[in-house]
Amino acid sequence: MIYLDNAATSFPKPERVYVEMDKCMRQYGANPGRSGHRLALEAGRALYRTRERLCMLFNIDNPMQIVFTSNATESLNLGIKGLLKYGDHVITSSMEHNSVARPLTALKEKGIDTTFIRCDFRGILDPEDIEKTIKKNTALIVVTHASNVTGTLMPIKDIGAVAKKKGIPFMVDVAQTAGVYDLDVKEMNIDMLAFPGHKGLLGPQGTGGLYISEELDVMQMKEGGTGSNSENLVQPAIAPDRYESGTPNTPGIVGLGEGVGFILDRGTAAVREHEEKLTGMLLEGFGEIDGVKIYGPKNSKLKAGVVSINILDGDSGEISYILDKSYDIATRAGLHCAPLAHRTIGTFEQGTIRFSVGVFNTREDIEAAIKAVEEIASELR
Amino acid sequence: MIYLDNAATSFPKPERVYVEMDKCMRQYGANPGRSGHRLALEAGRALYRTRERLCMLFNIDNPMQIVFTSNATESLNLGIKGLLKYGDHVITSSMEHNSVARPLTALKEKGIDTTFIRCDFRGILDPEDIEKTIKKNTALIVVTHASNVTGTLMPIKDIGAVAKKKGIPFMVDVAQTAGVYDLDVKEMNIDMLAFPGHKGLLGPQGTGGLYISEELDVMQMKEGGTGSNSENLVQPAIAPDRYESGTPNTPGIVGLGEGVGFILDRGTAAVREHEEKLTGMLLEGFGEIDGVKIYGPKNSKLKAGVVSINILDGDSGEISYILDKSYDIATRAGLHCAPLAHRTIGTFEQGTIRFSVGVFNTREDIEAAIKAVEEIASELR
Repeated sequence: MIYLDNAATSFPKPERVYVEMDKCMRQYGANPGRSGHRLALEAGRALYRTRERLCMLFNIDNPMQIVFTSNATESLNLGIKGLLKYGDHVITSSMEHNSVARPLTALKEKGIDTTFIRCDFRGILDPEDIEKTIKKNTALIVVTHASNVTGTLMPIKDIGAVAKKKGIPFMVDVAQTAGVYDLDVKEMNIDMLAFPGHKGLLGPQGTGGLYISEELDVMQMKEGGTGSNSENLVQPAIAPDRYESGTPNTPGIVGLGEGVGFILDRGTAAVREHEEKLTGMLLEGFGEIDGVKIYGPKNSKLKAGVVSINILDGDSGEISYILDKSYDIATRAGLHCAPLAHRTIGTFEQGTIRFSVGVFNTREDIEAAIKAVEEIASELR
Repeated sequence: MIYLDNAATSFPKPERVYVEMDKCMRQYGANPGRSGHRLALEAGRALYRTRERLCMLFNIDNPMQIVFTSNATESLNLGIKGLLKYGDHVITSSMEHNSVARPLTALKEKGIDTTFIRCDFRGILDPEDIEKTIKKNTALIVVTHASNVTGTLMPIKDIGAVAKKKGIPFMVDVAQTAGVYDLDVKEMNIDMLAFPGHKGLLGPQGTGGLYISEELDVMQMKEGGTGSNSENLVQPAIAPDRYESGTPNTPGIVGLGEGVGFILDRGTAAVREHEEKLTGMLLEGFGEIDGVKIYGPKNSKLKAGVVSINILDGDSGEISYILDKSYDIATRAGLHCAPLAHRTIGTFEQGTIRFSVGVFNTREDIEAAIKAVEEIASELR
């Protein structure tokens, strides 16, 4: 199968991810941070190693400020709900995934008001629109780094500068960019960074994390055993224990550490160059097919490795099905859990067929995808 | 290493758990429930298979009422916080783990009051004490099935009958018993069952679940993409989607399915018989050593496979360290994230050394543990 659904989850993973997860399960599968025996200590060290590697990748000083979660959605819920209070105002974009839009919608009845800034038809956000929207009670700016529908990259460095100038916490959802684009929480003035472990970071599903700046007081979502302050019925106040109750996903986090290790070894520049090249091929190839409409920017420098298209007025689900059945090509169709984004680009009814590239895709994969779309389009024309 | 820390996490796991997780990662590691291509559908089917097996184990009718979480702590937080409202009263026991005690403590400032029913020095709870404590505003009874400190089994069937009679939702924390003891949510009148995937169910860390009766309206803890109702900014109302936002831990849940499959094949009766026998050996062996104090019931029929001891006034952490270093035996020392339980049994200062057995322990493991404790005790006497 030609796998072009990397925006949902990357597949395959580097060999070292499989190998170390299996080794962890078989050789040191104890509970980290609880017991003091050899296997438990080894498991604990493995978790810490993953924190350190993530710090290296995102330029974070203190590994204890990285909180492991089960996915980026949990990270976003934790950061958003843990920070905001009754009467607060939030600014976000019209290109957000439901992992941002749904928590903010749910918070409305708790007296928290959100402005969704309208992006243009390519999904591009103007940072000046953010600045103009800031109110006295604006307590958070949260945006995706890249749309999961169009791949459109958001100007997060500029937004971070605005946030810093105005003293407003800035949160970024890097679900589509972590592991591929350079992310520096200091340079970009990012106070909370929500990332999945299983996409560009090449770890297994079931992993994710949230970096929380030491400046912020974010309320935990869960209480429970932390292996620390066990005598106390009150949750410990220090990170990461405050946020990591119960047994962690040790094999998953170990796998994430190997995925991040792979990225660090290869370098994000090389990963990005590879994905930009393949994305450029897709844009160019699809651009030459009569009847294919490409959404979002047409320049691969302005977008992550996500290309959404439609073919005439064909049903996106049906075309994705044909790609799977007749061409053995995996894509995703429909609304991609981001209805606001589809309204922005005008595909709320039709959805899109999404091709998303990963580090293991080849030129041949892309050529096959373009050929398949060409054939389907010629049938529909 | 002789691993007697199964109450923290079971180790090792059945071979089929390792094999199927690796296969899932390598062969069908797509995102279930989102895309419609072959790999995504295969991943989705694998998740459903785990739900079905859990239904078989716990006598649950509808697989969609099983919600996957990252651990039992998340399950407990979700059920407790999702159900309770300002002004409610909760009944629980003095043997609870911090995964129950800490969320309830945190809820105090949200106007939710808890009665912690005092158990006797062995950790035994009298169901009549529950009935006497019920008030008009009692909205939940939540108890552990077995203490993680003493192994003491709670009379959950009797408590379930009381709860049913009074029309109060009943939640059980089966962290120490799932996979070993017969659990029947119908016969026991259990409305919410919180379980870890990585202990007696023999799955990997990072897995757990919550069964929620269709009768209850439990509020979700997170909102986000669910792969369903994608056009809507409001979280879908149906289980399990309502509670399972974001990409699930597919390889972990697949591994859990294999662990449960192993239990179903072997039968809980055989697993329990094995663990009861080993627990009986520990109780008998430790009982004959001068200077060893055993906590909780001395009859293996009255407790799960968890035996906590102290040796004279020796430091529990130090003795656990010696067991690891000199005897290669893994145990856990200290307060076991359950301060209330330690107050109940009188070990709040000293903690305990905890030996917990699993399905793969042997008579030889137990004999070695008894011999080691005998030697350490003779040094301390």
